[in-house]
Amino acid sequence: MPYQDLEVHGAVAMHIPDLNIPRIVIIGGGFAGINLAQHLLNKGLQIVMLDRYNYHTFQPLLYQVATSGLEPDSIAGPLRKLFKDEENFFFRLALVQKINPTEKIIETSIGNLSYDYLVIANGAKTNYFGNNNIAKLVFPMKQLPQALDLRSHILQNFEKATLVKDYDEKQSLMDFVIVGGGPTGVELAGALGELKLHVLPTDYPELDFRQMDIHLVEGSGRLLNGMSEIAGKKAFDYLQRFSVNIWLDTRVNDYDGREITLSNGKKLTSRTVIWAAGVTGNLIDGLPTEAITRGNRIITNEYSQVIGFENIFAIGDIAFMKTEQYPNGHPQVAQVAIQQGKTLAKNLLGMIKKKNNPKPFKYKDLGSMATIGRNKAVVDLPSWKFQGLFAWFVWLFIHLIAIAGFRNKVVILLNWLWNYFTYDRATRLIIRPFFREKMDNMSDSYFK
Amino acid sequence: MPYQDLEVHGAVAMHIPDLNIPRIVIIGGGFAGINLAQHLLNKGLQIVMLDRYNYHTFQPLLYQVATSGLEPDSIAGPLRKLFKDEENFFFRLALVQKINPTEKIIETSIGNLSYDYLVIANGAKTNYFGNNNIAKLVFPMKQLPQALDLRSHILQNFEKATLVKDYDEKQSLMDFVIVGGGPTGVELAGALGELKLHVLPTDYPELDFRQMDIHLVEGSGRLLNGMSEIAGKKAFDYLQRFSVNIWLDTRVNDYDGREITLSNGKKLTSRTVIWAAGVTGNLIDGLPTEAITRGNRIITNEYSQVIGFENIFAIGDIAFMKTEQYPNGHPQVAQVAIQQGKTLAKNLLGMIKKKNNPKPFKYKDLGSMATIGRNKAVVDLPSWKFQGLFAWFVWLFIHLIAIAGFRNKVVILLNWLWNYFTYDRATRLIIRPFFREKMDNMSDSYFK
Repeated sequence: MPYQDLEVHGAVAMHIPDLNIPRIVIIGGGFAGINLAQHLLNKGLQIVMLDRYNYHTFQPLLYQVATSGLEPDSIAGPLRKLFKDEENFFFRLALVQKINPTEKIIETSIGNLSYDYLVIANGAKTNYFGNNNIAKLVFPMKQLPQALDLRSHILQNFEKATLVKDYDEKQSLMDFVIVGGGPTGVELAGALGELKLHVLPTDYPELDFRQMDIHLVEGSGRLLNGMSEIAGKKAFDYLQRFSVNIWLDTRVNDYDGREITLSNGKKLTSRTVIWAAGVTGNLIDGLPTEAITRGNRIITNEYSQVIGFENIFAIGDIAFMKTEQYPNGHPQVAQVAIQQGKTLAKNLLGMIKKKNNPKPFKYKDLGSMATIGRNKAVVDLPSWKFQGLFAWFVWLFIHLIAIAGFRNKVVILLNWLWNYFTYDRATRLIIRPFFREKMDNMSDSYFK
Repeated sequence: MPYQDLEVHGAVAMHIPDLNIPRIVIIGGGFAGINLAQHLLNKGLQIVMLDRYNYHTFQPLLYQVATSGLEPDSIAGPLRKLFKDEENFFFRLALVQKINPTEKIIETSIGNLSYDYLVIANGAKTNYFGNNNIAKLVFPMKQLPQALDLRSHILQNFEKATLVKDYDEKQSLMDFVIVGGGPTGVELAGALGELKLHVLPTDYPELDFRQMDIHLVEGSGRLLNGMSEIAGKKAFDYLQRFSVNIWLDTRVNDYDGREITLSNGKKLTSRTVIWAAGVTGNLIDGLPTEAITRGNRIITNEYSQVIGFENIFAIGDIAFMKTEQYPNGHPQVAQVAIQQGKTLAKNLLGMIKKKNNPKPFKYKDLGSMATIGRNKAVVDLPSWKFQGLFAWFVWLFIHLIAIAGFRNKVVILLNWLWNYFTYDRATRLIIRPFFREKMDNMSDSYFK
């Protein structure tokens, strides 16, 4: 509760100076927020960015942190560092609690702040579809502390498995159930398959790894639903070679922390259920219900303006922009967030300078990809779909290019080379004498 | 509470197979424990190593984790990895609670274990000299989670400082008090000085860093008491150039979380008091009081045998071995631990094979060193003492050589090069939505 003690001295406040230039408040330092901010710098505007973490997370590689492949520090960029030496840029570590559009004020854990333009870019969190039972017992993987926690949990379970004789008990500690056959689920299943093949057996010679099962449960009839059919099929093939058990057309009915009941009646036992089955917007109070739609997304027009407001915008995973091509909104992926951030930056500048007409957002699908363990990936480019070794190189290359910061690139490349040639995963530390906490449901108290 | 649920199934037990060869149980995977184990491998013995963490910590670089210079993963080596593919080596994550010498059994958080030979090598923890008030409010820095927690705390305090107007309040958030002028205190003061000069001002342009004070409080009349007089003097000089305030012949009388009262009457305000003022042995119940001496160290003879016992040994920081040259016991440093581990390995082998006479331990002082920020260090070799830039290179080189694992060496070198040339510290993540916990007083519940 870092800020609570400050209140004793009555001192909590934002302390953002009033510069008499338009103030743009950006909620969230994800792909959408940082791309927006980067294109608004040095344009005579005051930019205030708020985030609950002091770093930007490169979410596509979270699964490698969870499976001991990368240090958390290599896939994160401290936000103050990303914008260091930038004039009129202000970062504050804060949780936004309420938007007050009438007074153009937001209420946060560290005080109120007025805005001229507000951009909601605080993304999405894990969706448990209202099942509180499940929410308490499964592992989400949307944030860095969650991935770190999962890493510790996995390793702790193998330590525990060395202590039990009972076959079923041992099995429940060594087995994994991943719910959701999208990129996160598929990549995680592949990474666990690698751990099973190359890393864990030498670490735990006392365990029999034929006993370790990896299950992947997907509600629809195929994997990688957002990608091409061939990508889904190939991913299925690759995962089967890792002996991952794939359950299509299957949902999770219940979980008690040990036994998981599937919709087809099958029961699996596992202490580790990883939930990658869907997301829901990080909604903030204060917007009218008409502005909210399915999945807690905020409805915007093609200029990312929240319907009903002139000066409130939403971009990235939390935004729902209906277009002819995307009648159900855009996919909730990094590329949409990045492009919406850039487009909105241009439109905002035009709007503030009362110059040109705003440009409606047009998503340019650059393609998507997923990797499945060593040497294998599936890549969908708009005009070319390919899979296998070359796809894997493309995956590596694109991710290395995309991650922010030269140092991170070098450290990640080094780790990947190391992991590749030694069949090792170096970062196998259990660093959680701290309990398991649900970051998704993290209360405000942390910020007070 | 990872193991608690297992008890429901009545399954917690060590599950160490009985191999009908002598069983050596080593408590602790620090410098002493791993060097002992490495020299006992493949000799027809069963080796069981127990540790509360699943990794070996390279303690000399903990301060760089705390000051955002290195990732925690680069200064730790997973113990299972260190001993992978070794026959008859068993690792268990456990907290040892009691020694029962009569029955040759130890009681641990995961069950009982019998031993033929027991080696206590579980080191020392921070010593608060009985001041519980202080123990609750200051930051220790002996373990990796502690260093990580301190890193988050430091960064959170600067985030908080941006939120307050009150000068004293701001000062208390930006000021640091380090208690203890040994190598840890001196190196930490230097690292904080670097942060103040090169890193924090660009991260927090809204703060005035002339306001950030670093205090170093030392009870004796000089710094680096274990080293030569010239080393202490030079360290003093170097730290003064960083404008570190050094208080010699001064002790801490009290601390309330904000105000720290020194023995000279002076009062400082700081939210961050780092306690590096001394250590006390991680004592385990069950040894007679005659075997324990000052600082909770276990008295051994020159063969590391705990007095009164044939088959119980103590090495490293927790051991107190009185010799002619070291009437007050050996210094509690890595080199003693390493050498005691190696010597004991030889003696144990001889003892088990009933061969040669045991060799009394003779400490070969290879020298000691400390670094103070960029380009500066002090080095005491047995026959040569030197300071400055060359000493700094020697410091870097020796630490790089000493750390276990090729990957760690490369990653650390890379980080150091990066930090050196960019004046940057890359790992500035606040990753503790988890509360502050005292690892030193960590209860057994974590292991149950």
